[in-house]
Amino acid sequence: RSGEMAKSTQLIDNEVFRAYATYTAIVLLKMMLMSLITAYFRITRKAFVNPEDTASLGKGDSAKKYLRTDPDVERVRRGHLNDLENIVPFVGIGLLYALSGPDLSTALLHFRIFAGARILHTFAYLIPLPQPSRGLSWAVGYAVTFSMAYKVLKTALLL
Amino acid sequence: RSGEMAKSTQLIDNEVFRAYATYTAIVLLKMMLMSLITAYFRITRKAFVNPEDTASLGKGDSAKKYLRTDPDVERVRRGHLNDLENIVPFVGIGLLYALSGPDLSTALLHFRIFAGARILHTFAYLIPLPQPSRGLSWAVGYAVTFSMAYKVLKTALLL
Amino acid sequence: RSGEMAKSTQLIDNEVFRAYATYTAIVLLKMMLMSLITAYFRITRKAFVNPEDTASLGKGDSAKKYLRTDPDVERVRRGHLNDLENIVPFVGIGLLYALSGPDLSTALLHFRIFAGARILHTFAYLIPLPQPSRGLSWAVGYAVTFSMAYKVLKTALLL
Repeated sequence: RSGEMAKSTQLIDNEVFRAYATYTAIVLLKMMLMSLITAYFRITRKAFVNPEDTASLGKGDSAKKYLRTDPDVERVRRGHLNDLENIVPFVGIGLLYALSGPDLSTALLHFRIFAGARILHTFAYLIPLPQPSRGLSWAVGYAVTFSMAYKVLKTALLL
Repeated sequence: RSGEMAKSTQLIDNEVFRAYATYTAIVLLKMMLMSLITAYFRITRKAFVNPEDTASLGKGDSAKKYLRTDPDVERVRRGHLNDLENIVPFVGIGLLYALSGPDLSTALLHFRIFAGARILHTFAYLIPLPQPSRGLSWAVGYAVTFSMAYKVLKTALLL
Repeated sequence: RSGEMAKSTQLIDNEVFRAYATYTAIVLLKMMLMSLITAYFRITRKAFVNPEDTASLGKGDSAKKYLRTDPDVERVRRGHLNDLENIVPFVGIGLLYALSGPDLSTALLHFRIFAGARILHTFAYLIPLPQPSRGLSWAVGYAVTFSMAYKVLKTALLL
């Protein structure tokens, strides 16, 4: 069985695939961080959505007042949803792109710009920075994913 | 290293994998399109959620009136979220299915029906078409993903 | 072409990859189940969001009263979104992890704990169980994904 193992793990020895793995792990970890930031704001702002989450804060009506929305919590949640909407296409299309045989330098350019743009997007959303900071960082990540999709369709198209 | 490279890029030479790559790119691009449609409605309906997005429309209270929800914007957002809920399972299960050795014709049948159903779903949601158009197009995509999951579990099951 | 076919399907013969395929299919099917539970509550609670969904329940104002939010529907929807936020990173990072050459027993440990934690999380959310049931089951899944990401970055890092 070690033969099969060796075969399947060769993918991770390919440099373009290693770059894909690195940047995919980075952007997915960044997305996961949004959960912690949401939890941080929910606890510090005392703004919850599930009744069972406020049980430790008091009984009956005294706990009910913490079932409310908070602008900071909602802002992080919007950033999190925007991550889902944009990082999911990157992970899916990026995998196909990494397997479509791009040059390592071209692939790294795509992955680095995407990861940088999404990290900037998070800062632009959470601080928040004045527009068009958030809009531009979103657009750059979008364009990178579009460019990878073009390469995938050019290489693999079979309808 | 060119030997390894050649090996890892062979996946994209496999016809079933090429079909998977094509339809995954198509449905992910379609999902990404929802962001542009949301932005289009936010701008034309002047309905924003972040205060920094209305800064160019006026100062103070005159800009605040654009911080509101709009039925068309919310409709596109629901369509976008429904895409996430359904296209994510397709991309994940579809990859495993493509690697589970299906016939090309069977695989193409799955991928084509799923992509067609999701494109119909978007039209049914955005126009909107009377029910059960949206419900049926959703159910068809769901059933295709379920069928692929069955093949994956039959081929690969290792608990 | 049968040679290429044979080559590409070898991935699914690798035991770690088979385990990944099994648990990914399970957690994605579990996530898909949330759509059915949402539909069930929308229909039994008569709580809809799209006007076209209430057309069969009456005309004009008599149908409009069903355009409302229901606590049970909203609870399932929050569970569904939490699945997306956590299962997407598992599927993406888990694939890279499975290709990074872990021991089968270590990989199975990761996959089994993640799947178990997410199933518990769903029960904790929907019943609902008192906290910290939901919080802990969320944290366990989060930690497993983090552990896999660490292995991926240790094996593949190429910035």
